[in-house]
Order: sequence, then C-alpha cells, then structure tokens
Amino acid sequence: MSDEVDVPEDHPRYQSLVTRHRIEDGVEKGITSTQGLIAEGRGEAFDYLLGEETIPSADRAARAAAAHFLLAEHPVISVNGNVAALVPEEVVALAGATGADIEVNLFGRTAERVQAIADHLREHGATEVKGLTADARIPGLSHERAKVDADGIYDADVVLVPLEDGDRAEALGEMGKTEIVIDLNPLSRSARTAAVPIVDNILRALPNVTRHARDLAGSSREELEAIVAEFDRDAALEAAERRLREGALADGE
Amino acid sequence: MSDEVDVPEDHPRYQSLVTRHRIEDGVEKGITSTQGLIAEGRGEAFDYLLGEETIPSADRAARAAAAHFLLAEHPVISVNGNVAALVPEEVVALAGATGADIEVNLFGRTAERVQAIADHLREHGATEVKGLTADARIPGLSHERAKVDADGIYDADVVLVPLEDGDRAEALGEMGKTEIVIDLNPLSRSARTAAVPIVDNILRALPNVTRHARDLAGSSREELEAIVAEFDRDAALEAAERRLREGALADGE
Repeated sequence: MSDEVDVPEDHPRYQSLVTRHRIEDGVEKGITSTQGLIAEGRGEAFDYLLGEETIPSADRAARAAAAHFLLAEHPVISVNGNVAALVPEEVVALAGATGADIEVNLFGRTAERVQAIADHLREHGATEVKGLTADARIPGLSHERAKVDADGIYDADVVLVPLEDGDRAEALGEMGKTEIVIDLNPLSRSARTAAVPIVDNILRALPNVTRHARDLAGSSREELEAIVAEFDRDAALEAAERRLREGALADGE
Repeated sequence: MSDEVDVPEDHPRYQSLVTRHRIEDGVEKGITSTQGLIAEGRGEAFDYLLGEETIPSADRAARAAAAHFLLAEHPVISVNGNVAALVPEEVVALAGATGADIEVNLFGRTAERVQAIADHLREHGATEVKGLTADARIPGLSHERAKVDADGIYDADVVLVPLEDGDRAEALGEMGKTEIVIDLNPLSRSARTAAVPIVDNILRALPNVTRHARDLAGSSREELEAIVAEFDRDAALEAAERRLREGALADGE
C-alpha cells in the first residue's frame, strides 16, 4: 500500500478508505468511468456479505493462479479503469514476480482513457504497457470491444482478467486461453467462465497472487502442475456462494 | 415510467436499462455524485440477491408507510441526488397522493447540486420544492450535513428518507420523527433505525407506496392506525435478510 491517505494501516476501515480515495483519484484522472463506479459499488456489497476477508477457497484459487502464471509461456494481466485506479502498484508487482505483460483493455474504449490508464500505470512503476497498438481482434465480439494487441492478449496462453465483463471473459475462454478472473460475485458469468475464479476483493487478491508466486518461484514444473490439477473451480465457486449467502458463520469449508 | 428509453416495458432487463439511463442522465446534469454512483452499485448487488422483485414483507412495509403518510400532520419526502435521478416523477406522484412536501437534502451539499436537483424535480412536475432555504439544523450532525428547512423536514412528523446515510437517519429518528426508509440492505443502519424499513428497489417501492396511499385514501383513522400497529419492523428486516442470504427459494415468509 502506498502512503497516499493519512490513515494508519490498522484502522478498521483502512481498506475501505484507501479504496474510496483511489476511486476518487481515478475519476479526477479520467481513468474510472461511470460504469466503473457502479461496478465498484456492486463489489463493495458482495465484499460486505463475504465478511471483507479472503476466504480459504479464494486463497487456494490465488495459489492456483500463481502456479498457472509460473507455468505459462506468455502470461498477460489485462487492466481496465477500475483495476488501474485501485491496484496500479500491485499490478506492476505481480508482473515483476511472474514475467507477465501488462495490457490495457477497456470495455468502453477511448484513446484518451487508454492513454490516461497507461500513464497512470507508468507513474506507479510499469515500464512496458501494451494495449495502445490494438492491432488484433478477439473473435466473437463487436469491433471496439474486441481490440487487443497482437503480441499481448491475442498471443497469451494465460490471461488474468480482473473485474471483467462476462461477454469478453467468455470470448477469451473460447480462444482456448487459460483465464484467471478476480470477481466478488461468484454467480457472475466471468467467475463461472474462468479456469480459476478468485472470489475476493482485488485489493487483497492481487497481492496474494504475487505472494504465492514468490513462494512458488523455486518449485518444479511437476509441483506447479500438481497445484493446478488439485484446484477445484466448482468447489471454490460453491464455497464462495455459501459464504455469501450464509455469512461468516458458514465458513465450514 | 417515462418513455425516455427505447426499450419495451416487458423487456426482461427493462428496469435495469431504465436505471442505467437515468443514472447516466443524472451524471450529465450534475445531480448524481461519485458516491451516489457507488451507492447505486451496492443497491444493484443487493437487489440481484433479493431476486429483483418486491418481496411480500416489503409490500407490507410499503402499505404501513402509506398509512403513516395519510395519518401524518406534516409528511415530507427527503430527496437526494440518486432519488432525484432515479424516480423524479414517482416522487411527485407520491407527494400528490399524500399531500407531502418534497425537500432536497444532500449528504454532499453544494448550492449548485441543490439547485440542479430542484430544477430536475420541477421539470418532472414538482410545483414546490423545499431545501433551498436551509434555515434550520438537525441536532447532532456537523453543520453542512445538518441543514434542513424550518418549515420542511425540521417541522415534519413523518419523513420518508429513501437511500439515506446512517448518521442522518439516526439523527432524524432521535428528533422523534417517524422515519420511513427505503434501502436494499436490510443490515444497514438506516434500515435498522427506521420505524418502517422498506427493503426494496426505489423504482419499485416508491410507486408501490403511492398505490397503497391511493388504495387507503378512503380509510378511517382507526383502519390506518391498525395497519401501522400491525406492521412488525423486526419481522420485515428478518424476512429481507433471509431472502438475501438464502435466495428466492427461501421465500417462505
């Protein structure tokens, strides 16, 4: 976490206050869209019902995601406005720990927003940011929403698409890519499409994937493949829905 | 519903599309704030979990709210940015059916936003809009957040505060006013403070209160008092939380 807000890290509402501050900052910089703000609110509600903590199944998903990243030929982290506003440094840290590319990829794509987001990521330590060339298309989507870089998401074997819209998550899955999704709603199409759905707040989930990637850095291919094979996506989604519906008391997974 | 969006009313996503359109319009007009957009998203998530319908306990709450309005000496409908953006005509209709005043009352108060909201309500049929004088204070709140009209909310015996923040809902309750809240989160402080918590989407709830008010217009004081006395707020909150946690299958109330 950066020192951008004057609140001690042990403050009970620290995460909520940091989130609020980063989102407001994102609005000022033209990074966060109207739809992004509404999506942030939806996430807050689901996080509230989850108990605002990383549940055990989400931690297992984060570990499986880290193993996928380390096994990948060409992993890419897809970044939209909310991701850039909320976790710019955390995206850069994960890319550094796994050798992943960073690509800006927007639902509501405008040249200005792509540029503002790329600039914001660079201010937070990114060296290379893809997504500005947009010289390839994801099949099955309308023109503007399909744009990706030929040497980025189009070429990737593993893609992390945090906070992604369902249509695009499905279209990427249909291209045969291994898709890792971070989404607080376990019933969403994005979460249901993913090879690895991480049902967790992105502020907790992204650093957690990085931590697991560093922890697994010395592991053999066999060990990583075992972690990937053992991860049960349906069980993870069920555990998250149970927690959401029944509250913290139901954490008997 | 107005004819502002080109979508048939029987479209399965009609309500969601109308909401989206009105909110975007509210942003353009300077009515909807950043925090209002995030709050809208939180509401969407809770509504999704409720099944996007008026549950039986919320309908009973709407009927009790209508009875309170008809029994009141001076009922007032408090209107913030999201309420104005989402249901301007519905606010005017409820005021007409019950003789209630309409008062603009904002958490993030600026003269421009109060004026923009009052103008928007007048465009949708309101004749008198209070909240621009702001010559009285709700005790127990900081200066800006406490401002109300002396002949409006300050004087009211029954106040409808839809989508209100918890602090202000509590402070109004402590002034001895009968408080009716519309909030999709049955666990929120606003809902828990209210004499009548209506756990429902404001797009459904507000016309529903108006419908009940018209239906009860010829009732005696005794009949209205019986409806008020029979309403059980704790049972309503419990039913809403059960529905939220357990989903549509749990509608055994």
